[in-house]
Amino acid sequence: MHEMFTRSILPAIREKTGETLTRVTKINTFGMGESILGEKIRDLMTRGANPSVGTTVHDGIVSVRIYATGSPAQTAADTDRIRQVVQERLGSLIFGEDEATIEAATAELLKTRRFTISTAESCTGGLLAKLLTDIAGSSAYFMEGWVTYANAAKQDELGISSELIAAHGAVSELVAKAMAEGARRRSETDFGLATTGVAGPDGGSPEKPVGTVWIALAYPGGTLAQRFTFPGDRSAIRMRASQMALAMLRWHILGAKPPTL
Amino acid sequence: MHEMFTRSILPAIREKTGETLTRVTKINTFGMGESILGEKIRDLMTRGANPSVGTTVHDGIVSVRIYATGSPAQTAADTDRIRQVVQERLGSLIFGEDEATIEAATAELLKTRRFTISTAESCTGGLLAKLLTDIAGSSAYFMEGWVTYANAAKQDELGISSELIAAHGAVSELVAKAMAEGARRRSETDFGLATTGVAGPDGGSPEKPVGTVWIALAYPGGTLAQRFTFPGDRSAIRMRASQMALAMLRWHILGAKPPTL
Repeated sequence: MHEMFTRSILPAIREKTGETLTRVTKINTFGMGESILGEKIRDLMTRGANPSVGTTVHDGIVSVRIYATGSPAQTAADTDRIRQVVQERLGSLIFGEDEATIEAATAELLKTRRFTISTAESCTGGLLAKLLTDIAGSSAYFMEGWVTYANAAKQDELGISSELIAAHGAVSELVAKAMAEGARRRSETDFGLATTGVAGPDGGSPEKPVGTVWIALAYPGGTLAQRFTFPGDRSAIRMRASQMALAMLRWHILGAKPPTL
Repeated sequence: MHEMFTRSILPAIREKTGETLTRVTKINTFGMGESILGEKIRDLMTRGANPSVGTTVHDGIVSVRIYATGSPAQTAADTDRIRQVVQERLGSLIFGEDEATIEAATAELLKTRRFTISTAESCTGGLLAKLLTDIAGSSAYFMEGWVTYANAAKQDELGISSELIAAHGAVSELVAKAMAEGARRRSETDFGLATTGVAGPDGGSPEKPVGTVWIALAYPGGTLAQRFTFPGDRSAIRMRASQMALAMLRWHILGAKPPTL
């Protein structure tokens, strides 16, 4: 209702009355820090310009806000012009506008392409599955998830050998890949998505400090994995790792080069 | 720091200065609606009384707030007196004070008693496991979780027969119990905790409307299950179901009669 009103009804009313309006558009991105992202669109962010452009960050999501002031027709044209430049510069970092979330964008992509997915989580403890099932109709793409917190669970459920865990540690590229592959194989889904890391506050080491997370994606034809070091407390690390897993899946489906890798 | 300051430092300063203070205490409960709970302590909530008592509700948690005004010694004594009455009336509905959460209270109980747990989730989609692993050191009690969203997953992972699902439906007492028992058996934990329900917005029927959730707990010696109908949207239903699962576990461990059952 809110979106309908601001996007359609309000502009229509103002068009009839000839009133000047400020059209606000929020372009949401994930995968690049606010300051580095800001550098890429620095020239758009001139103080006092119309449209004016700025960035905000909330819960890991960096949003580019466009404020265009003028007649309905003029603000629509100005917004489109800036939107196009932002899209050219930020590409696959963008997952949606206004109220879009990364989980809804990923879900939409899975639904449209008729892909199925399973998850294998250690440090995110169920949060990744929770995000994937937050969306109504998620049973179309989400089949099954494992929270293999104990090493015994990783072995029993996902077929990961105790030797592999002993040799590399539970937080490692090979264990992350084996988790993703185990989930994909057992559930017979198109994708298996896995996380294993140190959410803290305890459990960190010089080699694997708190915030270290391996994320792996098993897909038809291969498995990719990437190591991250997320900042923040336990809750922030778990959320960033889950969001990044969704982003990696999205970039893979779109055939986009992951911008942070 | 905030708690240290308000609980210890501020009262100590005021004791020295002889100042009058208002001591605020929040007693957190789960498992009974605000209005029915209010009836049980109606006589404490007289307007203008000191201490004054009121209730607030946030995210399913009903809190009794005690506001005592006077000298440090007097407010401490007054608060204790009211707290005792509230405890007598509300018993096992209370899980903690001030910033306590139901997940932290449950985790503390599992840790102290050295119990282990596994989860099997359908409608909550990983949220129950997420809540149980929100707490640092959760690997001491949380071993393993399944998000068996598809019926095939319930069969393959938890050993639930397709005949049982066909005869009773995935949202049923027997399937909830079989999920809890399957999780407990496979992971060899003390407890298996399961949810299966209709989170909506689609999938409801006259017999099982949106909000219908079966929660089951498998424990050493048996399995209990209870049907609930939670109000609200998809997000609220999933949160209430997860909180209720934790509350049922807590009541069972404490040997308390579940107040809502």
